Amino acid sequence: MLKTLEKKDENVAAVMRRLGEQARAAAHPLAIASSAAKNAALDAMAEAILHREEHILAANAIDMENGRKAGLADSFLDRLKLSSDRIRAMADGIRAIAALKDPIGDVIAEWDRPNGLHIERVRTPLGVIGVIYESRPNVTADAGALCIKAGNAVILRGGSDSVNSSAAIHACLVDGLASAGLPEEAIQLVPTTDRAAVGEMLKGLHGAIDVIIPRGGRRLVERVQTEARVPVFAHLEGICHVYVDRSARLDMATEIVVNAKMRRTGICGAAETLLVDRAVASTHLVPILDALAEAGCEIRADSETRALYSAARPAADADWVTEYLDAIISVKLVDGIGGAIDHVERFSSHHTEAIVAEDAAAVARFFNEIDSAILLHNASTQFADGGEFGMGAEIGIATGKMHARGPVGVEQLTSFKYRVRGSGQIRP
Amino acid sequence: MLKTLEKKDENVAAVMRRLGEQARAAAHPLAIASSAAKNAALDAMAEAILHREEHILAANAIDMENGRKAGLADSFLDRLKLSSDRIRAMADGIRAIAALKDPIGDVIAEWDRPNGLHIERVRTPLGVIGVIYESRPNVTADAGALCIKAGNAVILRGGSDSVNSSAAIHACLVDGLASAGLPEEAIQLVPTTDRAAVGEMLKGLHGAIDVIIPRGGRRLVERVQTEARVPVFAHLEGICHVYVDRSARLDMATEIVVNAKMRRTGICGAAETLLVDRAVASTHLVPILDALAEAGCEIRADSETRALYSAARPAADADWVTEYLDAIISVKLVDGIGGAIDHVERFSSHHTEAIVAEDAAAVARFFNEIDSAILLHNASTQFADGGEFGMGAEIGIATGKMHARGPVGVEQLTSFKYRVRGSGQIRP
Repeated sequence: MLKTLEKKDENVAAVMRRLGEQARAAAHPLAIASSAAKNAALDAMAEAILHREEHILAANAIDMENGRKAGLADSFLDRLKLSSDRIRAMADGIRAIAALKDPIGDVIAEWDRPNGLHIERVRTPLGVIGVIYESRPNVTADAGALCIKAGNAVILRGGSDSVNSSAAIHACLVDGLASAGLPEEAIQLVPTTDRAAVGEMLKGLHGAIDVIIPRGGRRLVERVQTEARVPVFAHLEGICHVYVDRSARLDMATEIVVNAKMRRTGICGAAETLLVDRAVASTHLVPILDALAEAGCEIRADSETRALYSAARPAADADWVTEYLDAIISVKLVDGIGGAIDHVERFSSHHTEAIVAEDAAAVARFFNEIDSAILLHNASTQFADGGEFGMGAEIGIATGKMHARGPVGVEQLTSFKYRVRGSGQIRP
Repeated sequence: MLKTLEKKDENVAAVMRRLGEQARAAAHPLAIASSAAKNAALDAMAEAILHREEHILAANAIDMENGRKAGLADSFLDRLKLSSDRIRAMADGIRAIAALKDPIGDVIAEWDRPNGLHIERVRTPLGVIGVIYESRPNVTADAGALCIKAGNAVILRGGSDSVNSSAAIHACLVDGLASAGLPEEAIQLVPTTDRAAVGEMLKGLHGAIDVIIPRGGRRLVERVQTEARVPVFAHLEGICHVYVDRSARLDMATEIVVNAKMRRTGICGAAETLLVDRAVASTHLVPILDALAEAGCEIRADSETRALYSAARPAADADWVTEYLDAIISVKLVDGIGGAIDHVERFSSHHTEAIVAEDAAAVARFFNEIDSAILLHNASTQFADGGEFGMGAEIGIATGKMHARGPVGVEQLTSFKYRVRGSGQIRP
């Protein structure tokens, strides 16, 4: 029922090279495809996914069975598992992407020159995007659909544990492309679980890949950053901070800290470190830590904090650079806004940081002097999300500073070019 | 008089590592420096360059003498040579950069969310920029000043033949920084001519360099693209095309083609290939080629063109992918706009292309289907220039699609971050 995923008679480099050539060839028709054609393809993909629910669940059952035999952790199996609900959510996600405004051809800026030339900067697709991800099979659908919406071809390399699920989903995406008259090769799924395929993608497949987007844990991202010879939208870990300034309202600070840490602990925008202004240690620290503890959070603190809150465990050096992704928080007293900035600039992964304060001067320094992708004032770090930003679906949060930063949505998957209109101008 | 450029007691990697650390440390104060401080530094740099003209000319005389002894080509020596005029132009260039609007802190976009969050996307510096260039010592001043204006620290690695000239100019830039109270380490000049230093820069100096900008010939750019482990603003060669459509006015086409090719043949926006619509071969081809020949241009053409214009030499396959940077043009007849698009997409370096046409449908296809950084309608390719675009000084024309594309001016040397203002919002 499933496609043969291994082509044992060919070596990985040759398979990948052909994949790259096919994606590159598909990129041009995709780049000039109409919005209507792209949206028709996306709607057909969603339709196909709903239609073939049983088939996808059967494929997923094989992956789950293999995963259990291989002794995968429960949390891993939970990410791998599909259900009717999750399949419906996948289809809804693709339809939401279809409903987004088409970014391609958008005039981002335009101006006239004294010599009469009219210059426009217009959005264009990036070309071919390589997405390398781990266990969640739904990334196949999300990433594929987002790339198509932005007029890009895409090469998807899912985790080896979700290979059957991803192949079943991929077949739906390809059918959607075909039904809208778009090239089927615009969404390629790497047909081998050989890890050498990732190496080939990171080398860029002889110029066929324009950018790599890794979506996964620290080890994947580190491999990508070490090996990639093409641009990468880096998604480092989220070591996110909440700083409670001396001017903070205690009730607001407490609500924001508890939400930033505990609403969902496993997302990259979850807070990992709480910094409290030493000036309000005596009034603010204990109530906030009590609320965290009551919500089930383990507290690891510096010695000063522990002197005021003895239930805290001692924090080790490693705690300031650890993304717990769990109900654990590190806590430190700092010397006002300056101390907070120093700590964040030293230990942050430059993902997302929040300040709780009423003092405009402290907020201005926080916003000006900290160079993280997302800075929030009097709001929870858990808003670090493309949907919450109003950008629609996202493929992740970029922590690098090149091209894309923060939520990577459909606009961030584009480039631009200049169109210059003249009436015979030559340069003197 | 000149600084000692070689530190023989240290290895190159150690020297470069320290350089990177110093630049990284300088990047933060530079990033939060006021516009006034940055502009004061730039003005003081220009002042210092004018003041020390004699000193700079003396250093340049040493480079010229060494260059002559080494048997460098005249064209190379011409690029290396400084004069009073060139020194004044350098100072004027820095002042023009000072006069540009400061991009840092600019709100690029802002919007409100239904939950009351107000989101701003604001420009930030990139961080530390590595610039690798060749013979022209004035790049030291241009690149240094542009990076400072955009709040970045910069590591400059000039050509080994211009080492004394670059050092003398660099000393003026450092004095300008110091006089405005900005860190002197914000503009570093690599103090060794060892080529291993370039290798260290391309490896990113242990995270100290955010982006590399190569400015030089094909060999330099190829080395950078092969070895770089950090993002690169690619500046490939400019294999620029002019397409003369059947709807073109002959007088306009002739003027534009001659200007695009012959105004200055050595710049990257100079045309290298002329494509003429077969439908107007009998009327347009000969007059245009006559005008080129009269202007002193050698013509290398396909056999069809030669049948109509016997003075042309035969074009070899290599001619379609050669950046002559000289008074030579390759010429081909094509099958209308579709044929022109096919040729350009196959052979272009995606720098700049122009169409001469009166037919709006042909122009629309040219603008839509060709994916080059700059597309022009009824205007010369020689307008491919940051100054001509109204962007002020530029550090080159990027042919890649990531982050910067087209002229790389002060705005292109920035990144952005999000500032989110709330009033206690937590995520449900």
